[in-house]
Amino acid sequence: MINVGIIGATGYVGIEILRLLQKHPGVKVTSIVSQNFVGQKVSDIYPTLRNVFDMKCDALDIESISKKADIFVTALPHGVSKEVIPKLIALDKRVIDHSGDFRYKNVEVYEKWYGITHQMPELLEMSVYGLPELYRDKIKDAKIVGNPGCYPTCSILGIAPLLKNNIIETKNIIIDAASGVTGAGRSTDLPYQFCECTENYKAYKVSNHRHTSEIEQELSFLANEDILISFTPHLVPMKRGMLATIYGNLKTETSTSELVNLYKEFYKNEYFVRVLDEGKLPETKFTAGSNFIDISVVVDKRLNRVVVLSCVDNLGKGASAQAVQDLNIMCGYDEKTGLESPGLYL
Amino acid sequence: MINVGIIGATGYVGIEILRLLQKHPGVKVTSIVSQNFVGQKVSDIYPTLRNVFDMKCDALDIESISKKADIFVTALPHGVSKEVIPKLIALDKRVIDHSGDFRYKNVEVYEKWYGITHQMPELLEMSVYGLPELYRDKIKDAKIVGNPGCYPTCSILGIAPLLKNNIIETKNIIIDAASGVTGAGRSTDLPYQFCECTENYKAYKVSNHRHTSEIEQELSFLANEDILISFTPHLVPMKRGMLATIYGNLKTETSTSELVNLYKEFYKNEYFVRVLDEGKLPETKFTAGSNFIDISVVVDKRLNRVVVLSCVDNLGKGASAQAVQDLNIMCGYDEKTGLESPGLYL
Amino acid sequence: MINVGIIGATGYVGIEILRLLQKHPGVKVTSIVSQNFVGQKVSDIYPTLRNVFDMKCDALDIESISKKADIFVTALPHGVSKEVIPKLIALDKRVIDHSGDFRYKNVEVYEKWYGITHQMPELLEMSVYGLPELYRDKIKDAKIVGNPGCYPTCSILGIAPLLKNNIIETKNIIIDAASGVTGAGRSTDLPYQFCECTENYKAYKVSNHRHTSEIEQELSFLANEDILISFTPHLVPMKRGMLATIYGNLKTETSTSELVNLYKEFYKNEYFVRVLDEGKLPETKFTAGSNFIDISVVVDKRLNRVVVLSCVDNLGKGASAQAVQDLNIMCGYDEKTGLESPGLYL
Amino acid sequence: MINVGIIGATGYVGIEILRLLQKHPGVKVTSIVSQNFVGQKVSDIYPTLRNVFDMKCDALDIESISKKADIFVTALPHGVSKEVIPKLIALDKRVIDHSGDFRYKNVEVYEKWYGITHQMPELLEMSVYGLPELYRDKIKDAKIVGNPGCYPTCSILGIAPLLKNNIIETKNIIIDAASGVTGAGRSTDLPYQFCECTENYKAYKVSNHRHTSEIEQELSFLANEDILISFTPHLVPMKRGMLATIYGNLKTETSTSELVNLYKEFYKNEYFVRVLDEGKLPETKFTAGSNFIDISVVVDKRLNRVVVLSCVDNLGKGASAQAVQDLNIMCGYDEKTGLESPGLYL
Repeated sequence: MINVGIIGATGYVGIEILRLLQKHPGVKVTSIVSQNFVGQKVSDIYPTLRNVFDMKCDALDIESISKKADIFVTALPHGVSKEVIPKLIALDKRVIDHSGDFRYKNVEVYEKWYGITHQMPELLEMSVYGLPELYRDKIKDAKIVGNPGCYPTCSILGIAPLLKNNIIETKNIIIDAASGVTGAGRSTDLPYQFCECTENYKAYKVSNHRHTSEIEQELSFLANEDILISFTPHLVPMKRGMLATIYGNLKTETSTSELVNLYKEFYKNEYFVRVLDEGKLPETKFTAGSNFIDISVVVDKRLNRVVVLSCVDNLGKGASAQAVQDLNIMCGYDEKTGLESPGLYL
Repeated sequence: MINVGIIGATGYVGIEILRLLQKHPGVKVTSIVSQNFVGQKVSDIYPTLRNVFDMKCDALDIESISKKADIFVTALPHGVSKEVIPKLIALDKRVIDHSGDFRYKNVEVYEKWYGITHQMPELLEMSVYGLPELYRDKIKDAKIVGNPGCYPTCSILGIAPLLKNNIIETKNIIIDAASGVTGAGRSTDLPYQFCECTENYKAYKVSNHRHTSEIEQELSFLANEDILISFTPHLVPMKRGMLATIYGNLKTETSTSELVNLYKEFYKNEYFVRVLDEGKLPETKFTAGSNFIDISVVVDKRLNRVVVLSCVDNLGKGASAQAVQDLNIMCGYDEKTGLESPGLYL
Repeated sequence: MINVGIIGATGYVGIEILRLLQKHPGVKVTSIVSQNFVGQKVSDIYPTLRNVFDMKCDALDIESISKKADIFVTALPHGVSKEVIPKLIALDKRVIDHSGDFRYKNVEVYEKWYGITHQMPELLEMSVYGLPELYRDKIKDAKIVGNPGCYPTCSILGIAPLLKNNIIETKNIIIDAASGVTGAGRSTDLPYQFCECTENYKAYKVSNHRHTSEIEQELSFLANEDILISFTPHLVPMKRGMLATIYGNLKTETSTSELVNLYKEFYKNEYFVRVLDEGKLPETKFTAGSNFIDISVVVDKRLNRVVVLSCVDNLGKGASAQAVQDLNIMCGYDEKTGLESPGLYL
Repeated sequence: MINVGIIGATGYVGIEILRLLQKHPGVKVTSIVSQNFVGQKVSDIYPTLRNVFDMKCDALDIESISKKADIFVTALPHGVSKEVIPKLIALDKRVIDHSGDFRYKNVEVYEKWYGITHQMPELLEMSVYGLPELYRDKIKDAKIVGNPGCYPTCSILGIAPLLKNNIIETKNIIIDAASGVTGAGRSTDLPYQFCECTENYKAYKVSNHRHTSEIEQELSFLANEDILISFTPHLVPMKRGMLATIYGNLKTETSTSELVNLYKEFYKNEYFVRVLDEGKLPETKFTAGSNFIDISVVVDKRLNRVVVLSCVDNLGKGASAQAVQDLNIMCGYDEKTGLESPGLYL
């Protein structure tokens, strides 16, 4: 039994991890930290948990909480991490972090896109990008796992087989993606108010969303050359779900069925990657609530272009469920542990 | 390990039972029957289940399916049941049924409110009303369990402590309730089309909804006198969830806290009934996806009236999850088995 | 042409008035006041108005704005009104106010339910409750019109024919109502955030909502005796719309068709009150965006009780459109002017 | 006063035209045809219209209805048009049609993408593509106007200034677009059922949507060379609204502000085209319910690529409101007549 602490437990990412871990036979949540709700029962804040998990929120006192758990999941607002993570590492704890801080190999890229100075560059060495399908072996022993962003998870896995197999040009890759509103966290900002959000659809941060750089880093590693992409996120009036529609120019003629086969082969050992049969398309409700990523491939013969549809739950494989997958790898558990439940069609 | 068959597996009630049973250690689903999708994988119809449960749908051939399982859950359209259930019973199978057919003790009441002749009156004797909080002992050995309707479950449990304890007048009980759209099943009728349903709220079947009679039957048993109620259902533009707002005139003066205590005492052994502390109110998202029922009690001193707020997931405690709870009782399992997961705040 | 100023123009009530007045041939909006957005174009805040109405927001400088208009509509947060309305009145302006301040005849009732001391009791004498169907003649010459609350508008008009005609008992009147989220205004409070609100339904302020007292005042006037009611508001995950389900015990036996006829007679001169034929029920989308109120009456013979379904757009007849109707009356225009558009089915 | 008949009046496009024409001072709707509802009041089918427009539906009897009006708007299911439109033309009526039948110059393209033989090729000569911003002069005297599809309207106007001014390469144009559910019409198909649609987002008809060919036709005319595009439609869980995110590779370096200026110049005489200032982005709720199209342009300097965001109401400028604009042009009215109302922020 592994003892786990969740720091930032009352945000949407934190609470979804807590929900998932209720079903995990090998993990015990022994501390939940929420600075806004210290001393309150988490089940008073999220009453779904009444009778199920009624633990009180701890203050962010590293000394005290570090005694309670061996692995910490951090889902903190920017700026708080540097007060927390170095201390946890110094105390020999392992960390799965949800900020952008441990996702980059090149500090300058991070600093340019985030517009801030990195606070813990010395910790980057011991951090691993927490995408199991690409970095499983390194995650196993990592001290710090930087859990990927939701858009990057969805995009990178959607495009990896094409770049790894040299199928598409590295120019003219375009990723047009959309997310449910939980992607903004438990925000009280006006644009996320119900009446502002419902019955509305929009693009945001056109050509300047931070996840662009995270996607580019990983695509460049996959292709072994520097890749720049167009990335446009959109906001969909739904809670959970993410779909990336990815366009690439084919280097040579091929067919949908050839590429479907190539994807199935590429991901044949990946339980959580479901490559759909030719003619089937993903929908966000098929992955909502789960750790699955559903991927379809369509070749447009007229244009010699491929369109990939890649779909996750932004709170699932895009955040919390992937954190549990990483946790399983770090603990030597079967990756599916606690993640066996199907998603929520309804 | 108990083998279970689900007949009518591809409706919303059936598929939710299938979802819940994925997590059940003591139950194996060995046959799923869907006349519309014979031979198709259920995971092609509900792709959330891909890789998780890919069984093909059986035809409604009693002889064949009866060999596969010991207990059958039926979620069938009206009129089909009589071709199915007597045969299963004759083959010594046990049945949890979701129609109104096995919920009534008085055939005439059923026939009046349903406007049809009961097809299997001889089976009523061996059937039990599947509300565990009231009929646990009888469910244990029942051949047929008539799983209660969603509105009745929500209303009866909300009002039982008041009637059992002689707290309110038996006249002037009013139940004003609202349901999410899954309550209509997987219907393609125009009123349940997205554009007709979303951004809309309405009452329906005012003063003539069938569940009125089911609620009245059970309230009358509880009070030991004939009770008539006003019941008005409403449709809410959301998938899951049900809230009943129940009004009763107090026989003597009392306070909110006294009644909260009375409810807590009444349900002290019921894991799935959560009586909320004074000042807290239920919300449908707190029970969505779970088998919990959340109940608040408010005394209006000005009027000497009590208002009870009772909340379930119409697909959870109001149908599928309650079927699993019944199944557990029938099989001698802990009632919580397979139902431990918290609901879906998001 | 009447010049109108809107103070509090950038809230949901204000902006809906502005939308409606774009179509009004006899009214010109000559000043819009918004303390949060002074100097900004209202069409930058609500871009629907781009090219249509690009006026800049004025500061709340009474001297300056009072020169621009003859009638002012105020939709202000509590506490600001007393700085504004007495000055406007002193300058001989007429006011349509949206707070609770000018809806009560008895200051004590107001002070008890609002928990504050009334700031302008001396102005109550010259104020009229702005429900045209009941107070048309007084509105005509009123200096101050207190525009009714949304729940009161919906409830009072739904029940007026019954009390005026002595059809129901004055005890045991129960109003169970539900509103769309715009009822909470342009709030950034957490409960109105998209992910908290969508796919959720709840009651709130059970037995203590302020509108209870406003409804009781008017019902008491109608019945000529003191009436207390149960009132329970609910929140529906939609933007606009309000439905009240009203229960009353009949004094003598009657039928649905008799009461439908009575309602049709009662409202025969009221264009905006649509009494539905027997068997038809209102839905919020039928009145959304309009000034109509749709009313159905159903007699439950079993219980000798009547159920009234009364439906408005909380932003329409429940607030902004009714303000325009009041404005028309005050200006001597046809009441329908600017309000002829049908609602928004879609 | 022009007399107008609407054939197919009870679909979503038809009913929205009816709603818009209520405010039109120069048009009288004198016949509404609906084969499903012959003899029924349209206000019984769409109760928003009660008291506002209570006309009964006519049968599709050409002889009879042709006497009632001079211009007909047809919003018919495929296959019915050929029984209707030639006869109307023979009777010297003018027609605004909403099918794909009169949008193409090349019958072969139509037949290839629609998979059927064109039934009225001889009428194509007298038909005009009803996009006023491009074909205003021809619409004026057209016998038949083929009202453009929603995606084509949104896409073509979004991209026209770039192609007309030779700003982008004609290869690698990618249009990623999303629509509200009214785009599917008043369908009772399962995928448009509330529970299937809400909280869900998906792409559909990837690389084979018919509108692709319609967009390509017009872009080719604009560029004076054959253009092929990638077009991917998505379905958003909302009623109204459409956003196209368009990608093009710039031929030479330019800036966002240069392109914004170019767009503003290009559309300077177009009231309904709102080119947004640099830094502002469209949202579907800003155009919902109106005839406006909102367009933003963003240059991505890193990639020398332009991203255009183009936004309409699929039922507004994308269908019904544009039909009214066409009607105004055909009748010699000011194009804004009946279309002055701002959209629906709420």
